[in-house]
Amino acid sequence: MSTTIKLGIVGLGTVGSGTINIIQKNGAELTRRTGVEFEVIHASARDITKPRDCDISDIELSSDPFAVVEDPNVNVVVELIGGETLAYDLVLDAIARGKHVVTANKALIAKHGNEIFAAAAEKGVCIGFEAAVAGGIPIIKALREGLAANQIESLAGIINGTGNFILTAMTQEGRDFADVLKEAQAKGYAEADPTYDVEGIDAAHKLAILASLAFGTPLNFEAVFTDGISDIEPIDLDCADEMGYSVKHLGIARRRDNQVEMRVHPTLIPHEQMLGQVHGVLNAVTVNGDAVGATTYVGPGAGGGPTASAVVADILDIAKVMQGRATCEPFGFTQNALIDLQALPIEQAHSAYYLRLKVADVTGVLANITSILSAHEISIEGLLQKEPEDEASSVPLMMVTNTVQEKQLNAAMAELRQLESVQGKITRIRLEHFA
Amino acid sequence: MSTTIKLGIVGLGTVGSGTINIIQKNGAELTRRTGVEFEVIHASARDITKPRDCDISDIELSSDPFAVVEDPNVNVVVELIGGETLAYDLVLDAIARGKHVVTANKALIAKHGNEIFAAAAEKGVCIGFEAAVAGGIPIIKALREGLAANQIESLAGIINGTGNFILTAMTQEGRDFADVLKEAQAKGYAEADPTYDVEGIDAAHKLAILASLAFGTPLNFEAVFTDGISDIEPIDLDCADEMGYSVKHLGIARRRDNQVEMRVHPTLIPHEQMLGQVHGVLNAVTVNGDAVGATTYVGPGAGGGPTASAVVADILDIAKVMQGRATCEPFGFTQNALIDLQALPIEQAHSAYYLRLKVADVTGVLANITSILSAHEISIEGLLQKEPEDEASSVPLMMVTNTVQEKQLNAAMAELRQLESVQGKITRIRLEHFA
Repeated sequence: MSTTIKLGIVGLGTVGSGTINIIQKNGAELTRRTGVEFEVIHASARDITKPRDCDISDIELSSDPFAVVEDPNVNVVVELIGGETLAYDLVLDAIARGKHVVTANKALIAKHGNEIFAAAAEKGVCIGFEAAVAGGIPIIKALREGLAANQIESLAGIINGTGNFILTAMTQEGRDFADVLKEAQAKGYAEADPTYDVEGIDAAHKLAILASLAFGTPLNFEAVFTDGISDIEPIDLDCADEMGYSVKHLGIARRRDNQVEMRVHPTLIPHEQMLGQVHGVLNAVTVNGDAVGATTYVGPGAGGGPTASAVVADILDIAKVMQGRATCEPFGFTQNALIDLQALPIEQAHSAYYLRLKVADVTGVLANITSILSAHEISIEGLLQKEPEDEASSVPLMMVTNTVQEKQLNAAMAELRQLESVQGKITRIRLEHFA
Repeated sequence: MSTTIKLGIVGLGTVGSGTINIIQKNGAELTRRTGVEFEVIHASARDITKPRDCDISDIELSSDPFAVVEDPNVNVVVELIGGETLAYDLVLDAIARGKHVVTANKALIAKHGNEIFAAAAEKGVCIGFEAAVAGGIPIIKALREGLAANQIESLAGIINGTGNFILTAMTQEGRDFADVLKEAQAKGYAEADPTYDVEGIDAAHKLAILASLAFGTPLNFEAVFTDGISDIEPIDLDCADEMGYSVKHLGIARRRDNQVEMRVHPTLIPHEQMLGQVHGVLNAVTVNGDAVGATTYVGPGAGGGPTASAVVADILDIAKVMQGRATCEPFGFTQNALIDLQALPIEQAHSAYYLRLKVADVTGVLANITSILSAHEISIEGLLQKEPEDEASSVPLMMVTNTVQEKQLNAAMAELRQLESVQGKITRIRLEHFA
């Protein structure tokens, strides 16, 4: 085969430019690693006249992305446009033409990965997607190979930098959600429509991918329970902190025998946990394996350089495959070895909980509350009471429960709402003690 | 080839037992990943009658480790006895017989790796050593593959759990070194002779390995500068904390063009750095790559399960090689692509510094000190003064400098020692701000 691997890049945004920069700047080092050379020979962008943060003088440019895929000289197609329609067509077209694909597109992999991987297996090509989860952190490789000796029991991750930026600023500066969101938008961390980030959809895409790798199961994005951070109030962050917890928007996947739970929601975690120490736009994933215990991976989850670092790592792995020195399995399990696990509905999941109630400032209220909880076999592990907020004679009451099944808590909350002394809505945030 | 890979294990301590437990307990999962089966067919231990923490009923046992290596049915030799004499002979014997080797032996790799890898390349066999650094954290794979797109600029790690346990307990409980060391020995974290751990020799072995992987350079253990933690006093941990720093025993490797510095020493790092948050026996490594920036890997650095997790990950990689699905390169660079980098002497390294002086409680002392520092182009970035410790009228004075070359500081310290107002020894601890 040729000693030069010819790359076609679809999409010249920050990640595309970052990829070109790495290939050009670190070319000698990449050759030192692989024995082959890499060249970006063709790239596409909607507006090919726009100035770019990279040197594109030696690269053929097309405004039609299919021109890149169809270029007979391109060996590896790097898909960096995102979305699930055009990207889907491009990736399947590349596979059909026997080309390897690298993508940073988590929505595409989460929702169409099973089909894409099957098509790739049939054509004997690789699909690299290290960049789809947690940017520059090589968490896909860690799960697929580094921790392969283990049965993975669970994992939990801060896998959306926008959400972590918002929660961090709310916690450290006592600001409210809407205010910090505006800042995140101004800084370019959040989109004009922030739904994907703040409602946990982006994190759910990534969690579905991580869970498949961890448990060797087909992708099942639809089964991910998702709850956002837009209802989080500064008082909860403040009280959680006082009780010894950080609040993070986590993606959590846990296997129990033949069941798997996958959920994205705001979560209290003890300060001393590594995930509790990861602030700002950083991402982090903690993986619990039966042999190794907990290992944690921390780094930048977005941005041109970090994401391109993961894209190029995939390209190097594909270079080994093209030299006949490796094969590729998207999940790190052999063909047909994936097993279906039953998705556990959130009502059947187990969690501890943080609750905030507004209660009347009268005697006997706590006794009423604890007796309802106790009737549902829920115990109170921590309690915090604040001075009345105003003259309305209501008092905020915060508590932390033991670990129970969610439907137990739902039933107890329904009864608590009936209490005359409980005023307004009850805030409930899940709480996890990772082993 | 056979669908069963036959393993021979030399050494049945905690890691050997842990390896057997994983192979037996997770066998179905390992086969699901690789398509082949794994069996430990032969093991050696000094006393083969001793009870073990694993089921050895189906394993041939020998008291002679060479019987394992020479067993014609053994495909992969797992060396877990440590040391550099017998282990050296065993590993080279295994290679000569065309067998793959997995080892957790950092001293062996750090000091004899160049020779071992050359022998292995000649015979076309693999040497897996993921377990030699940071136990269960897949840091070798991250450097070799996950971060392969990057030119690695530097890395820093807490790579000796014993040392981190001691410094953590000293910091959190205000106890002195000797006292905590005794506890670490009682708990089995430290050896009866703790020299390797507390003087940084063990960390230096691991750092030499990490630096070779990061920079693609032959192993050069002799060039690692090493300073231990036995002189650290609780007052320094306390003052560092007050000034915003954690004190960790770090291994640091940094490349500057064609030079490399490698050093193990106690180090002040800002609390907010990930490494500053890693406490107890945990290990962690932060890697700075030119594209990705900083990524950090945290987990258990020792123990049977975690170390065996890394051993078995290497066995799985070797299984792919045995199936013709992969090749192995110990450093992740092609043969002959390693480059020699000049080792930078510690006097030429750059660092910031924490200094503690005992000074006479008289006016003008600080002016004298700052003028000496200033003459050597050293500025004071932080200052902390404590009440006199006793009636001797001496006052402890703590300061933090800017980043300078070590020889500048040495020259300044020599002059400071001449000052009449500076009493007793000057404590100096290096300080790093990682980007």
